[in-house]
Amino acid sequence: MNNILIDGEWRPALDPAGSFRAVDPADGTELSDLYPISGFSDIEEALRAAHRDVPELAETRPEVLAEFLEGFAAGIEARTEELVETAHLETALPQEPRLRSVELPRTTFQLRQAAAAARDRSWCRATIDTKVDIRSKYGPLGGPVAVFGPNNFPFAYNSAAGTDSASAIAAGNPVIAKAHPGHPGTTRIFAEIAHNIGARCGLPPATFQMVFHLEPESGYKFVAHPFLGASTFTGSRPAGLRLKEAADRAGKPIYIETSSVNPIFILPGALAERRDKIADEIFNSCTVGAGQFCTKPGLIMLIQDRDGNGEAFFEALRQSFERTPAAILVARSVLDGIRIALEMMTKAGAEIVAGGHAVEARGFRHENTLLRVSGDVFLKNPKELQQEAFGPVSLCVFARDPLQMLDIASALEGNLTGSVYGHTAGHDDEIYEKIAAILRFKVGRFLNDKVPTGVTVSASMVHGGPYPAAGHPGFTAVGFPAAMLRFAALHGYDHVRHNRLPPELQDKNPTGKMWRLIDGEWTRRDV
Amino acid sequence: MNNILIDGEWRPALDPAGSFRAVDPADGTELSDLYPISGFSDIEEALRAAHRDVPELAETRPEVLAEFLEGFAAGIEARTEELVETAHLETALPQEPRLRSVELPRTTFQLRQAAAAARDRSWCRATIDTKVDIRSKYGPLGGPVAVFGPNNFPFAYNSAAGTDSASAIAAGNPVIAKAHPGHPGTTRIFAEIAHNIGARCGLPPATFQMVFHLEPESGYKFVAHPFLGASTFTGSRPAGLRLKEAADRAGKPIYIETSSVNPIFILPGALAERRDKIADEIFNSCTVGAGQFCTKPGLIMLIQDRDGNGEAFFEALRQSFERTPAAILVARSVLDGIRIALEMMTKAGAEIVAGGHAVEARGFRHENTLLRVSGDVFLKNPKELQQEAFGPVSLCVFARDPLQMLDIASALEGNLTGSVYGHTAGHDDEIYEKIAAILRFKVGRFLNDKVPTGVTVSASMVHGGPYPAAGHPGFTAVGFPAAMLRFAALHGYDHVRHNRLPPELQDKNPTGKMWRLIDGEWTRRDV
Repeated sequence: MNNILIDGEWRPALDPAGSFRAVDPADGTELSDLYPISGFSDIEEALRAAHRDVPELAETRPEVLAEFLEGFAAGIEARTEELVETAHLETALPQEPRLRSVELPRTTFQLRQAAAAARDRSWCRATIDTKVDIRSKYGPLGGPVAVFGPNNFPFAYNSAAGTDSASAIAAGNPVIAKAHPGHPGTTRIFAEIAHNIGARCGLPPATFQMVFHLEPESGYKFVAHPFLGASTFTGSRPAGLRLKEAADRAGKPIYIETSSVNPIFILPGALAERRDKIADEIFNSCTVGAGQFCTKPGLIMLIQDRDGNGEAFFEALRQSFERTPAAILVARSVLDGIRIALEMMTKAGAEIVAGGHAVEARGFRHENTLLRVSGDVFLKNPKELQQEAFGPVSLCVFARDPLQMLDIASALEGNLTGSVYGHTAGHDDEIYEKIAAILRFKVGRFLNDKVPTGVTVSASMVHGGPYPAAGHPGFTAVGFPAAMLRFAALHGYDHVRHNRLPPELQDKNPTGKMWRLIDGEWTRRDV
Repeated sequence: MNNILIDGEWRPALDPAGSFRAVDPADGTELSDLYPISGFSDIEEALRAAHRDVPELAETRPEVLAEFLEGFAAGIEARTEELVETAHLETALPQEPRLRSVELPRTTFQLRQAAAAARDRSWCRATIDTKVDIRSKYGPLGGPVAVFGPNNFPFAYNSAAGTDSASAIAAGNPVIAKAHPGHPGTTRIFAEIAHNIGARCGLPPATFQMVFHLEPESGYKFVAHPFLGASTFTGSRPAGLRLKEAADRAGKPIYIETSSVNPIFILPGALAERRDKIADEIFNSCTVGAGQFCTKPGLIMLIQDRDGNGEAFFEALRQSFERTPAAILVARSVLDGIRIALEMMTKAGAEIVAGGHAVEARGFRHENTLLRVSGDVFLKNPKELQQEAFGPVSLCVFARDPLQMLDIASALEGNLTGSVYGHTAGHDDEIYEKIAAILRFKVGRFLNDKVPTGVTVSASMVHGGPYPAAGHPGFTAVGFPAAMLRFAALHGYDHVRHNRLPPELQDKNPTGKMWRLIDGEWTRRDV
């Protein structure tokens, strides 16, 4: 049985509630390594150790945190082949280009972006009002961050090496990673790298800890524990909402990212102008990574038009869905989820026009599946018809007219993204304005003429949104330094003696380059 | 029966669940005006109207919002005497200096600060990454903000005119104010002013709405309603936690500010140096406004020392508590709360050494009350002994030694503020460092050698803190522009056509002076 990483030591789970093996999605067989399902005693020990190390980590110079994050990135690069092979075995995601050339470089880029943000220090938004001698900045939470990672990104959202973990540590918080049971071997390699680099950088031993799996009850206690700072969960909505309830009751911040159907509105002028191009783009966005992205377009809105462009677009899309072979999904649970979602959607009146079945073959495969429904029917069952079907499944909604398209927009829940395709010369602008006025408040990232998959890691990125897409609409899970603010408390210093202030709030700019808001002006100067 | 303000009209409550009168705390008699307790139909109508007006308000130029807020401030000044008399009648707070010369100017100052922040636009933290054409900023929530105000600040935290309402409107959100039933007449005047100015500025009719009172069940439905953006509640912990539970379950942001004991640690060197001065400061801070401040020091930590400075300090404090006559409290519920808190604290081992009783006289009065307890006993019942006793009640804790003082700090819950008094020449620095390392993560605003009452309205102010002092540690309820971020969603714009971007994100700086983060640099220049 594999060891877990607690307080700087790899050691057996104390009181495991059971054990598990990862499964190769390509043939459904169990892999050989055995991993423990930790009892709560492991979590308690991790929390105690992290609690002990909070003050030391908070006093650690950001340059050391940056060295850790950069060392982590370099360590990942040094073990690329092992990571790619292990992740491929555990998730069946293609080695090329996906794992080796896309997701792994994204992961190391994120770690280096987090390092740069830590080093730069501007993320903490130091605010100094000299006349009243009151100063403030964002600082660490005072407790570790629990990271529950998803199944679909074994690298970039990995609980150990992904964006949540990188953000939390860059902001000065210890991390306790809970591996996704779909890729424990991948997570173990990341944890080994983090452990080695952490020791080399002289970070306190509980800066980074990792367990492989937990029973649900232990998860609820974990996210509500008095020693905890905050938690993040990326995964299924029912599991996320149960964790959220436990955390909310204890007053502990939790950031969930549990589902999104990422509506795309395609306006008549856009179809008249570039129907086939848009159909290609959308098909690719719906099926890349076998549709296993949180930004996959699950809902495509069209208007039933007289010139037939809507139907022609739909037919092009349908053919693409039908002729493209089924890719392997990361887990059996994705197959199960699709089955349940298709049952719900068809029961609510949607019609399957391409695919619709699991593939009877080795491994977890499902046909690329396209459904359609009229706007009338959608508006009768808006709840059922906007449930996320995680995987290569999308639903086209045909509105009767532009007015009904607005009603459909109004019936949407909170989403990570929302896109509108319009005529490039503005022929759709009248309806665009009306849709945008509604959709703007329903999504985190609003796009024009562009699919939502492919989340750029940049300072302006918003990967979040109104509930239920995320737990709080004011944060983003991607993009530095903004993603770090999820793991920060606002710290005021009132009349605190100058030599006792954190360096970021002392008169002298600690790096000479850090941005601070001094008496209402953003500046790099000293006070 | 008084009318409520819904959708731009003063009209009777539709289906009132009852009625109430305000009470004059100076003699316990009911005042003459009768106010409705709204049924949920009033709230539903308010929510529907606000939902309708969200897009128009979001498109309203910030200059118009600023004119509204400034007009509101001027309108308040024009009705100063009426406001001061009404608030005095309803709360018994002194007209001078408190209401007329302190709280009213603070209220108009806040409104003007909010106006300046709206006009300036920098609050929205526009972030532009030119290379990838992704832009983001904070924007309105897409739903109204419900404001539940407290009993202790009839002006500055009033649900209609206080900091929450000003922040929400400055950020472009409609407000639905729920008056505190302790001062409905005061709130009605504010609502009249807001209504008149709103109409004059041409704001949509549901920008500002007001009801006087609700049954608890209506409150739970209110904060969880799909049309709602967010809510704020300032008041008692049980009521706040029930609202929070309802809002959390619906995934609606709620900002609660429900209790804080604002610990003050007084180190031996400080006592040796300036014992009496500190005793004076702390006595004043404990009893100003009859202790009815959320930042009142409820816990004072001392070390049992050989030279007797701790006891001498305590005796000076005790005498001040004893010799100062009882002030009138704002409501009978404050008296009730004190009785319950004193029962709990004495049962948990604290000893009343000054005061302890309600005053048998006309009106709601309670003796200034000081308690003491040993560190040993405190650590046995830390939960009971750090319950807020809202009013002129404070507890001194005598630690056995510096080590025990650290244990006491570790046993504290989240608070709005925490102060440490130390020797000016640094004789206490060793223990200071250790206490600060613990206390920093338990409070929003950390002070040196200063009492926490008197919350400066400045950009760097932090009036918030870890749960249960507030619901999320990353926000402040006081200070512009930061307080506005509670009522903002992070809005990403990915590849959105330039002419469709909000002015704050277009290439040209919309005011020429707004601060924006362009490609990692804070600047006022155009793109």
